[in-house]
Amino acid sequence: MSPKAAPGEPKAGRAVTACLLIIGNEILSGRTQDKNLAYIGQGLNELGVRLMEVRVIPDVETVIIDTLNQVRGRFDYVFTTGGIGPTHDDITADCVAKAFGLPLIVNPEARAILEAHYPPGQLTEARLRMARTPEGASLIENPVSKAPGFRVENVFVMAGIPAVMQAMFNSLKHSLVGGKPLRSRTVKVELGESFVSDGLAAVQDSHPDVEIGSYPFNRDGVFGTRLVLRSTEESELAAAAAALDAMLLSLGVEGVWEEAPGNASASQQRA
Amino acid sequence: MSPKAAPGEPKAGRAVTACLLIIGNEILSGRTQDKNLAYIGQGLNELGVRLMEVRVIPDVETVIIDTLNQVRGRFDYVFTTGGIGPTHDDITADCVAKAFGLPLIVNPEARAILEAHYPPGQLTEARLRMARTPEGASLIENPVSKAPGFRVENVFVMAGIPAVMQAMFNSLKHSLVGGKPLRSRTVKVELGESFVSDGLAAVQDSHPDVEIGSYPFNRDGVFGTRLVLRSTEESELAAAAAALDAMLLSLGVEGVWEEAPGNASASQQRA
Repeated sequence: MSPKAAPGEPKAGRAVTACLLIIGNEILSGRTQDKNLAYIGQGLNELGVRLMEVRVIPDVETVIIDTLNQVRGRFDYVFTTGGIGPTHDDITADCVAKAFGLPLIVNPEARAILEAHYPPGQLTEARLRMARTPEGASLIENPVSKAPGFRVENVFVMAGIPAVMQAMFNSLKHSLVGGKPLRSRTVKVELGESFVSDGLAAVQDSHPDVEIGSYPFNRDGVFGTRLVLRSTEESELAAAAAALDAMLLSLGVEGVWEEAPGNASASQQRA
Repeated sequence: MSPKAAPGEPKAGRAVTACLLIIGNEILSGRTQDKNLAYIGQGLNELGVRLMEVRVIPDVETVIIDTLNQVRGRFDYVFTTGGIGPTHDDITADCVAKAFGLPLIVNPEARAILEAHYPPGQLTEARLRMARTPEGASLIENPVSKAPGFRVENVFVMAGIPAVMQAMFNSLKHSLVGGKPLRSRTVKVELGESFVSDGLAAVQDSHPDVEIGSYPFNRDGVFGTRLVLRSTEESELAAAAAALDAMLLSLGVEGVWEEAPGNASASQQRA
């Protein structure tokens, strides 16, 4: 019998999943371009955790609480970015506490970190807001600007500023229990999507456990397509890649296999 | 009595809302950086439509159908990007048809557009996939690469490639019924957030109808904060801006008011 997973630990034997909540009016209004999604998506994948859904939501208490409570039971891990600074519009800690029904406290450990960071007398009330966490939360270290993120069960609360978020993500990575990383291989062809689509559908049908995506591009007037194979199993990837090569050859074109980001060894093994 | 809104038309007398579904594994994996959210958020705001939520979801039929059916009743407008190309992983049209319980057909008007575009004999089965829409859908013109998007009730289905999405968005804009645009004013101060947070909270308390956001930055070692005021009412914005100036002056700093993107007249009026 498989052991029951502790709260916040994924169950064994299936894909480990995650959801990201990007909290902030400035993203929805288009004022700020999000840069955290791609970083977290790639970082999670390297750990064998699949980012299954992202929601961008406004700085509105009821929306944050409802959304958290909708997703935290559906995914193994939930990450949030944004809303943990010192100003009135930073309400994420309050909302996480309410979503879990926990009191919001000034976390003694977080307070000690801020006391050590600021010169005597400069830990103002405003700055002390950044030490507030739900009771019992564990902290996520912030080597960039000190004010920590925190974790409650399977929910990880991080800052929105990319440099700070990245530092926090690297601090918390070790605590995630992942599955097999999804590996990918990408081949570039100088053909529009519609020329390869029939052959590609056939390769997909004969390799159902490999996820095959087709992404058209147009660079300097050259129309082309990147075909991406994704699987946790190296052997399945290799078989699908061979089938793809054969299919492209039958169309009279040769694909160029590319290095996959965060997945250099796969394409090196192919060379 | 206010007239009942037709299907797909927002009700009168309140904020007009929208939700965006970004469909694509390549966004979730971090392989591709989304560039459509900010464009759509800004574009909608200029029309007086507020983007209230964005979801990024994978190319999985059940997820797309469930998500569409969750959000299309909750928001005045729903926009989707991605998944309407000619390959097997382009399943958005199928999913929209299933969400609405409509048959998926080869749209005669879309077929005519593609027939006019491709040389005789080159409208292959694969390319014809791009003419499929739910029965009764109206088309969204695509001046860039011809294959159209489409609309069913309040759901607008667009391509994922930014240049094509932008062209489609500009084609459909005229059919949206918006409210009052949210106007914004932004002031930049060379002070960390925590120095302004008490004063800012007081300005927020005395101007509850203006949404005030605080966004820290660090450029070339200079720590600073952008304070953003948002309201549909010019008079409320002006009053909050004056209160903000007075608050900053009391701290001994002068803020620099910036041009807001898509909102030049507001900051010109101030100068």
